[in-house]
Amino acid sequence: MNAPRFGSLHEGTAPEQGAESFMELARAGGARVESIASRAVTNGAWYEQAWTEFVLLVAGGAALEFADSTIRELKPGDWALLPAQCRHRVAWTDTACETLWLAVHLPPG
Amino acid sequence: MNAPRFGSLHEGTAPEQGAESFMELARAGGARVESIASRAVTNGAWYEQAWTEFVLLVAGGAALEFADSTIRELKPGDWALLPAQCRHRVAWTDTACETLWLAVHLPPG
Repeated sequence: MNAPRFGSLHEGTAPEQGAESFMELARAGGARVESIASRAVTNGAWYEQAWTEFVLLVAGGAALEFADSTIRELKPGDWALLPAQCRHRVAWTDTACETLWLAVHLPPG
Repeated sequence: MNAPRFGSLHEGTAPEQGAESFMELARAGGARVESIASRAVTNGAWYEQAWTEFVLLVAGGAALEFADSTIRELKPGDWALLPAQCRHRVAWTDTACETLWLAVHLPPG
């Protein structure tokens, strides 16, 4: 079946205050594409993954924090490439509006 | 080496009128993430790929055309999942501003 599918990052379920919602949009050969909506997150969970993640900030605003306490602020259009074992978390996301991300989990190795 | 890298979709090379510019942002395990900037493209080249492509329209506006002549308009935040062998092309992109895309080429199979 080779019919295209369509959607919008703006049509996902709105997360609760301080929380995130995830939706898987595509998956093949060990790669995954997901959309993430965040609302006023502060000091999110730490991640240290066995694969590379590419993340694009599409709307809103946010900052990522790294193991060495570096904080990197992201605005719409900004992306981050997080190699395997790069420990990181969301430091904060915008408190005034929903923040939308596109995340690509690349195949390990 | 597990240091993160950062960038912005807005910082790529501006394409000529009627053209597109491509930049590879990440590659691993047969998956590729690239940014595409288009300026006033009309009737782009047809693609029929051996892998699934996920494409997100980040800024500007565009329409995709399919083998059955269906045209699908995309605005910022809209995405399309194009399965392998799904013949498609860019029908047009905004003539007033640059159109920015994020494309994810998923591993075949």
